[in-house]
Amino acid sequence: MTTLEEDLEDAAAAPRGTGAVHPGVRRARAWLSRAVEPGTVDLWRYVEEIGPVEAVLRLRAGSAPAGIRSLVGARVAEDATLPDLRRAEGCGARLVVPEDDEWPAYQLHALTVAVADEPLVRRDQSKRTQALVPPMALWVRGPARLDELTERSVAVVGARASSAYGEHVAGELGHQLGERGWTVVSGGAFGIDGAAHRGALAAEAPTIAVLACGVDRSYPAGNGALFHRIAEDGLLVSEWPPGCAPLRHRFLVRNRLIAALTRGTVVVEAAARSGAQATAHRAQKLGRPVMVVPGPVTSALSVGCHELLRDEHVGAVLVTTAAQVVEAVGRIGDDLAPPVERPGSPRDGLSDVAARVLDASPVRIGVSPERLARSAGCDVLDVLRVLPALELAELVEWTGTGWRLAPPPKPPGAAA
Amino acid sequence: MTTLEEDLEDAAAAPRGTGAVHPGVRRARAWLSRAVEPGTVDLWRYVEEIGPVEAVLRLRAGSAPAGIRSLVGARVAEDATLPDLRRAEGCGARLVVPEDDEWPAYQLHALTVAVADEPLVRRDQSKRTQALVPPMALWVRGPARLDELTERSVAVVGARASSAYGEHVAGELGHQLGERGWTVVSGGAFGIDGAAHRGALAAEAPTIAVLACGVDRSYPAGNGALFHRIAEDGLLVSEWPPGCAPLRHRFLVRNRLIAALTRGTVVVEAAARSGAQATAHRAQKLGRPVMVVPGPVTSALSVGCHELLRDEHVGAVLVTTAAQVVEAVGRIGDDLAPPVERPGSPRDGLSDVAARVLDASPVRIGVSPERLARSAGCDVLDVLRVLPALELAELVEWTGTGWRLAPPPKPPGAAA
Repeated sequence: MTTLEEDLEDAAAAPRGTGAVHPGVRRARAWLSRAVEPGTVDLWRYVEEIGPVEAVLRLRAGSAPAGIRSLVGARVAEDATLPDLRRAEGCGARLVVPEDDEWPAYQLHALTVAVADEPLVRRDQSKRTQALVPPMALWVRGPARLDELTERSVAVVGARASSAYGEHVAGELGHQLGERGWTVVSGGAFGIDGAAHRGALAAEAPTIAVLACGVDRSYPAGNGALFHRIAEDGLLVSEWPPGCAPLRHRFLVRNRLIAALTRGTVVVEAAARSGAQATAHRAQKLGRPVMVVPGPVTSALSVGCHELLRDEHVGAVLVTTAAQVVEAVGRIGDDLAPPVERPGSPRDGLSDVAARVLDASPVRIGVSPERLARSAGCDVLDVLRVLPALELAELVEWTGTGWRLAPPPKPPGAAA
Repeated sequence: MTTLEEDLEDAAAAPRGTGAVHPGVRRARAWLSRAVEPGTVDLWRYVEEIGPVEAVLRLRAGSAPAGIRSLVGARVAEDATLPDLRRAEGCGARLVVPEDDEWPAYQLHALTVAVADEPLVRRDQSKRTQALVPPMALWVRGPARLDELTERSVAVVGARASSAYGEHVAGELGHQLGERGWTVVSGGAFGIDGAAHRGALAAEAPTIAVLACGVDRSYPAGNGALFHRIAEDGLLVSEWPPGCAPLRHRFLVRNRLIAALTRGTVVVEAAARSGAQATAHRAQKLGRPVMVVPGPVTSALSVGCHELLRDEHVGAVLVTTAAQVVEAVGRIGDDLAPPVERPGSPRDGLSDVAARVLDASPVRIGVSPERLARSAGCDVLDVLRVLPALELAELVEWTGTGWRLAPPPKPPGAAA
């Protein structure tokens, strides 16, 4: 068994661009994923600048700048890379690194762009839970390729303590998005998240749960069977190594990944001050469409949704169907939602005078065109002009002595 | 009893600007309100140009242009002005004309502006049911002044076949708008309209029903008691003389008045292709805010609402409370809605490191700062720096041997 440093030195000495990722690179990123909490701007920049192998070597040797060393702190002496990688393998997971082909570089590029806006001085930077920093590496469990599954993907997020209404809508959205070939990405939580995952699975479509703990852990435990099914047909994804606990601050950090990995985020139910709102704000900052399903204004679980829709800064789009979601995130021309169907009426094409003559026509006893003209407030000539069209449309009829409304048409299939 | 022509000649000869409106002017407008359906662009322009008295004299004498004469058609020979005015008086109503002080000139000015956009050639003009034409005169029943009551007014409109949810929301809105000193204007229909009127009356606030029939008629008959109450404390308003029937085409024409008389229009429930949507579109064209209450996406009665909110051209604002309505239509600074209350949390002010240390603190057995540093992924010095603040906030406590989470605070009033 090689030590971490041996592997790293070997990777540092290896020629570049020879295809497969050197095991030392993967081990360096595995070490970083445990040593530093994700979302740390300065560490990401340090690794971006000198590469993961050199960064870990210098951190371990104590030759990294003090500001960077303090980010790792007490964890610098630890090395759990081999147990972590072995534990991942044991549960069918792998560590996907930016050097891999499978890395979802296209989607995550938005984070690289966003992190460039962070100031150089640390105290001016965003809080770590809000900073839009690309991940160091992603622990991925499941058979599918991460880059392929996220290419046409939508985040569906919402309240844990959801209502039956919200779960119904999330399940329908998940199902219909799955049927249309879109991957549903969510957080694997109770409530809306779980309903969206289950809807997608019911459509036999892959779905991705982005977790705030290790991919070998079931949190919440009640969703254990769901995670098992997702790992079979979709993907469980986490920035934290196997075994890591779902600490509270990690959920906020995780939310930026749900927003970043997808083409847009749909919020189904969200109370005021909710994680789903946070995810929506991340998506907006990343330039991704924010879509919101409204609900009854009498429901506390829709307060956050309606706040998002009222916030001009967010520019959220109200959506009611999967077709409207796909229209918002899809390619123009490919994915237009059909307009809401409106029932037609034979009155639709009528001119103003014709509508007035129709309204003036009595139900039972036929009247003369002169009387229709007085009731409708127009010339007799106008009445005589529109009556043939009204008769053709079977809206009025001639009784032999005058004009009256025609009886309503019989429904198709009714007995004569 | 003077004839119509005698009264008109007398009015034509009377000196102008002597205060009270000449009876002949009122009689001319009474005649016009029965002779021509409202919303007729060319007739309004003709009256605007030569005045109501001269217009009626020429129409009756057959000396008006043929295009204008044809608008009146078969009704030109009739004169029901005295019976109409007497019938109005009999039910406590009056005819308010643009020459009156009570005329809501400020609000209706938007229609005067809008009608200027109509083309000169009739076949290029909007359909009469959609044309934004000022009214010739308004039949008004009730004790209040029309201009005063509409000064701070909001339209609340929606489906006739509404749901319990919609009626609840409309009633609450009507009540709260009334309490805040705003007049609720609606169409007097079953469902949302009626609920909004009733909510306002329950707040002992005046409300206005704009009808598509004479102000002495109860349509729908089931709202008879409601109309009676509105006529006592608020106003019934119509463009049609007493006795006129609520013909279908009149509702669409009426809708522009609901939009025009108010500072903004709130749609509570609307199916696809509904009159409430039409009113909202009128409001938008008149430059008035369109506000929409969302509902469950599973309800057919909210389809029209969500369509309005999705239509960028309408620019509708989602509203959930009367305060938000008032914010949208009120004066800036006077009528700002309070932000949605969000529950506070002692975690809110925590720094990133403090939140991580808190998450790393065990529930039962106290641990050393060194161990906290490893779990939280930071320096021991950082841990020692944030622990006092966490202890002050009663989030962690010292057990004598180490640090652990503090028990949650007892609810106020709980027994010791």
